[in-house]
Amino acid sequence: MIRVGILGATGFVGAELIRLLVNHPGVEITFLDSRSYKDIDYSTVYPNLRTYINAKCISVDLDSDLDNVDLIFCALPHGLSQEPVKKALEKGIKVIDLSADFRIKDADVYADWYGVEHKAKDDLESAIYGLSEIYSQDIKEANLIANPGCYPTSIIIPLYPLLKENVIKDDVIIVDSKSGVSGAGRTPSEANLYALCNENIKAYSLGKHRHTPEIEQELSAAATRQVMVQFTPHLTPMTRGILSTIYIKNTKYLDYDDIKSIYEDYYKDKFFIRMLNNNEFPQTKAVYGSNFCDIGFTIDKRTNTIIIVSAIDNLVKGAAGQAIQNMNIMFGLKENEGLNIVPIWP
Amino acid sequence: MIRVGILGATGFVGAELIRLLVNHPGVEITFLDSRSYKDIDYSTVYPNLRTYINAKCISVDLDSDLDNVDLIFCALPHGLSQEPVKKALEKGIKVIDLSADFRIKDADVYADWYGVEHKAKDDLESAIYGLSEIYSQDIKEANLIANPGCYPTSIIIPLYPLLKENVIKDDVIIVDSKSGVSGAGRTPSEANLYALCNENIKAYSLGKHRHTPEIEQELSAAATRQVMVQFTPHLTPMTRGILSTIYIKNTKYLDYDDIKSIYEDYYKDKFFIRMLNNNEFPQTKAVYGSNFCDIGFTIDKRTNTIIIVSAIDNLVKGAAGQAIQNMNIMFGLKENEGLNIVPIWP
Amino acid sequence: MIRVGILGATGFVGAELIRLLVNHPGVEITFLDSRSYKDIDYSTVYPNLRTYINAKCISVDLDSDLDNVDLIFCALPHGLSQEPVKKALEKGIKVIDLSADFRIKDADVYADWYGVEHKAKDDLESAIYGLSEIYSQDIKEANLIANPGCYPTSIIIPLYPLLKENVIKDDVIIVDSKSGVSGAGRTPSEANLYALCNENIKAYSLGKHRHTPEIEQELSAAATRQVMVQFTPHLTPMTRGILSTIYIKNTKYLDYDDIKSIYEDYYKDKFFIRMLNNNEFPQTKAVYGSNFCDIGFTIDKRTNTIIIVSAIDNLVKGAAGQAIQNMNIMFGLKENEGLNIVPIWP
Amino acid sequence: MIRVGILGATGFVGAELIRLLVNHPGVEITFLDSRSYKDIDYSTVYPNLRTYINAKCISVDLDSDLDNVDLIFCALPHGLSQEPVKKALEKGIKVIDLSADFRIKDADVYADWYGVEHKAKDDLESAIYGLSEIYSQDIKEANLIANPGCYPTSIIIPLYPLLKENVIKDDVIIVDSKSGVSGAGRTPSEANLYALCNENIKAYSLGKHRHTPEIEQELSAAATRQVMVQFTPHLTPMTRGILSTIYIKNTKYLDYDDIKSIYEDYYKDKFFIRMLNNNEFPQTKAVYGSNFCDIGFTIDKRTNTIIIVSAIDNLVKGAAGQAIQNMNIMFGLKENEGLNIVPIWP
Repeated sequence: MIRVGILGATGFVGAELIRLLVNHPGVEITFLDSRSYKDIDYSTVYPNLRTYINAKCISVDLDSDLDNVDLIFCALPHGLSQEPVKKALEKGIKVIDLSADFRIKDADVYADWYGVEHKAKDDLESAIYGLSEIYSQDIKEANLIANPGCYPTSIIIPLYPLLKENVIKDDVIIVDSKSGVSGAGRTPSEANLYALCNENIKAYSLGKHRHTPEIEQELSAAATRQVMVQFTPHLTPMTRGILSTIYIKNTKYLDYDDIKSIYEDYYKDKFFIRMLNNNEFPQTKAVYGSNFCDIGFTIDKRTNTIIIVSAIDNLVKGAAGQAIQNMNIMFGLKENEGLNIVPIWP
Repeated sequence: MIRVGILGATGFVGAELIRLLVNHPGVEITFLDSRSYKDIDYSTVYPNLRTYINAKCISVDLDSDLDNVDLIFCALPHGLSQEPVKKALEKGIKVIDLSADFRIKDADVYADWYGVEHKAKDDLESAIYGLSEIYSQDIKEANLIANPGCYPTSIIIPLYPLLKENVIKDDVIIVDSKSGVSGAGRTPSEANLYALCNENIKAYSLGKHRHTPEIEQELSAAATRQVMVQFTPHLTPMTRGILSTIYIKNTKYLDYDDIKSIYEDYYKDKFFIRMLNNNEFPQTKAVYGSNFCDIGFTIDKRTNTIIIVSAIDNLVKGAAGQAIQNMNIMFGLKENEGLNIVPIWP
Repeated sequence: MIRVGILGATGFVGAELIRLLVNHPGVEITFLDSRSYKDIDYSTVYPNLRTYINAKCISVDLDSDLDNVDLIFCALPHGLSQEPVKKALEKGIKVIDLSADFRIKDADVYADWYGVEHKAKDDLESAIYGLSEIYSQDIKEANLIANPGCYPTSIIIPLYPLLKENVIKDDVIIVDSKSGVSGAGRTPSEANLYALCNENIKAYSLGKHRHTPEIEQELSAAATRQVMVQFTPHLTPMTRGILSTIYIKNTKYLDYDDIKSIYEDYYKDKFFIRMLNNNEFPQTKAVYGSNFCDIGFTIDKRTNTIIIVSAIDNLVKGAAGQAIQNMNIMFGLKENEGLNIVPIWP
Repeated sequence: MIRVGILGATGFVGAELIRLLVNHPGVEITFLDSRSYKDIDYSTVYPNLRTYINAKCISVDLDSDLDNVDLIFCALPHGLSQEPVKKALEKGIKVIDLSADFRIKDADVYADWYGVEHKAKDDLESAIYGLSEIYSQDIKEANLIANPGCYPTSIIIPLYPLLKENVIKDDVIIVDSKSGVSGAGRTPSEANLYALCNENIKAYSLGKHRHTPEIEQELSAAATRQVMVQFTPHLTPMTRGILSTIYIKNTKYLDYDDIKSIYEDYYKDKFFIRMLNNNEFPQTKAVYGSNFCDIGFTIDKRTNTIIIVSAIDNLVKGAAGQAIQNMNIMFGLKENEGLNIVPIWP
């Protein structure tokens, strides 16, 4: 049994980790850390988990409370992970960090986009970017996983093979993403107020969203050249789900089957990647509550453009699910252990 | 392995059965019947089930196609079950019928409320009303289960113990229920059109809803006297969930603990019934996608009224989940086999 | 031109006042008060009002800023109205207060339910309860209007005539109300968080909601005896609208037409009350964005129960619209001046 | 008084015309045509219009019923307008057609994208494309207006000035649009079923949407060269609203102010075009229920891309509102007569 502790257990990502872990046959939850809900029954905060969790939140003391733990999931807000990660690693405990703190390899880029200096640059170097389908070899050996952002997961998975195989020549790739409101977190604010989100769609952070450097880092690595994305996130009136629509020039005049076969080379045996058939396109409902990433694409001959659409559940494949997938890889379990969840429809 | 066939596989209830059965360790799906989608890949109709179902719908011939089946789930529209149920029973195949056709014991009452004569009165007598927590003994021995309606499930579970224990003296019990739109089925109509349901609440079928005689039959059996309900269903802008708010007179001046202990006598060991603590009340999200029925109640001393609130997922405990729970009981499996699904939140 | 100032202009009720007032031919807005948004362009907070409002919020000084004002709309949170109302009245300015502070005539009852002592008891006595259709005579002469609560409006309008005409004998009237989330206000909290409200229904404040004494005060006045209500509000996944379902015993064995004619006596000439035909029932969408109150009812002969359903837009007839209707009455304008707004559908 | 008849009065667009026309001071509605609801009270189909409409639908006979009419709004499904338009024009009655039938000037292009031959090619030539802000001079003189599609309105308005002023050099302009479900009409189908649209986003008609030739026709006219758009519509879980996100290369290295001033030249005096300030972006809620088109844009210096976002209410500026705006222009009324409706928020 892998003994896991969860830091930041009462955020939406923390709660999703717990939803998925309580039925995971290889895991035992050791503690649920939450400063704001210290000493409060977890199931009063997340009443869906009645029956499954009968424990109070603690405010963990990293110096004394980590003895019975093999792995920590760190689901703290950006900027707060660096210190606990450092401490856990020093104690020889593996860490999967779900914040942005260890995703950007270049500390200057991190400082530019996140507006603060990085305080754990050593660990940054050893961190493995946890895109499970791409980096599983490295993940196996890792002590620290930087779990990918939700938008980046939905964008890098469909683009990586095409950049690696040199299909894409665009200097700037246009990505138009639509996210449900749970991506704005559980701390009440105008960004996640019901009355302002319902019956409303808006674009935000145009040209400035912090997931941009993360996406570009990985796409550039795939292409072995500097790639830029024009990334526009939209807030849409639903709780879960990200749909990303991606536009690239078909410079090499490839056919549908050419591209399909590239995807099959990369993802054929990947349980969580579902390639759709010709003329089928993803919808967020088809992955609801699950760890799947659905991908469909078409080639518009008229405009010579490839349009790719991907769908994930932002809290599962975009956060907690992929984190557990990474745990499974790290500890030698089956990749979909505890994650073989059929999407809910309708 | 229980070999099951599903009649009416492309309705929402059929699809929910399949979502739950594909991961059930003791079940093998033999066929998916759907007249309208004959020869069509099931996963193009329900794209959430890609990876899990790789089969085409068939239009089943009851005379020739039932040889490899131990159990049939019949998820056909009301009125269409009687003939296939008859045939399956004759062949010695067990049946769980999810329509209303075998719920009402009195064929005259059925004719009154459903407007058609019953065509399988013999089987009506042998049918067991499949409210799993109440009738598990009978369900074990049954060949034909009449699976309860969604509203009735949310209403009978919280009321049965109180009527059985003679707590309720009301001649008419007031029940105000709120349902998500999936209850209106998958056949497009004005009742389930997005633009007419979204940002809208309405009451419907006041004093006339067909679930009324089903509720009254079971409550009267519990009370061993004729009980009536004033049942008002409401259509509310969400996909899944039923919340029922029930008002009864506290004629015996009971305390919170008196009633709590009655509930505990009946439901303490029932996995799927979750009694909430004092001052906690159910919400549909806390049971989303799961087979749980959450119950909370309060006693208003000012008005001497007991108010009970219950929440279920209409497609799970209100339909497919309870059907599988009944199958588990019939075949001697653990009651929650394949149904140990944590509700999704948020 | 009536010169009006708005206190608390950036809450949802304040914003709704402004939406309705900018096109009112007899009104000129003098100031928009908002402590939190002082010096900020109003239309950056409410971008729907671009073109219509080109002004910054001020933090009003009641001693010096009221000279050019004939009327104040006070849309402050409960408990904060008493002092500004006092000051404005002393200066001879008319006030329509949209908080609960002047609705409850008995200061002890107020203290009981709201948990604080009333600090303006003198003004309490002179306040007129602004249910426009019932108290228009008093409203004409009033200097201070206590604008009714949203739930109470949806409940008192359909019940008042029946209590006045002695139709209802129940000691306790059961009222089951369903509200959209905008009723929870604009201050972000768990109660109005998108991800917790969407796809969710819950009952709240069972037996304890603060609108209870307000409803009972008015119903008791109509009946000239003490009437109690069992009032259960529910939070439902929509932005606007309240649907109230009301259950009363038909002790006098009245027919549909008897009750219909009572309603017609009271409401025939009332522009904003729409009595539905037999077998038609209200839905919140049919009043969306408008000042209408739709009422339908049925008599269930089987149970001898009258079921009444009413629908309003909580921000219009339940708040800002009725306030403006009261202003029109106070200043001798046509009752529906500026309020002749067709509901939006779909 | 302009006497108007409405063909196809019970579709969503027909109903929106009526919502807007009942309070229009210069209009009298002569008949409401609807084959499916012949002899049925209009307000039972659209209960929001109780009080405002007290008339039954008729099935109009174009040979005999057009005598008292100055103008016909034709809100029939695509393909059904050609014959009635012909007849009305022959009788000297002006027509505003809200279908696609007269938008595409080239009958071959129409046949290509709509799959049927055009049956009124003569009238096609005389039809004026009714984008009110662009073609008001021609609209004044027109007898037949082809009212623009909803998506095209949201796309052409922001792009027209930039193409006219030669700012855009792209051969293919990328447009990613998000629409509410009311755009899918009122005829129940899987495309507008609540349970399949709620909590779901999907792209559809990739590279094939019928609004593409309409958009390209107008943009090419502006640019005086052949322009293509890569247009991807998305179905999103809301009733009303279209948000279009448009990506163009900033080939001329313009600044924010350069582009702003182009927009001001074109739209400064246009009541219904609201240019947002720098760093403000449209959201559909800010135009809800109104005839406004909000436009915001930014220049991403990093990628040298101009990103424009526009928002409209698809049923108002995208259909019925613009049709009435065109009527106002045709009959010499103030452009915003009857359309001065403040958007609803929240």
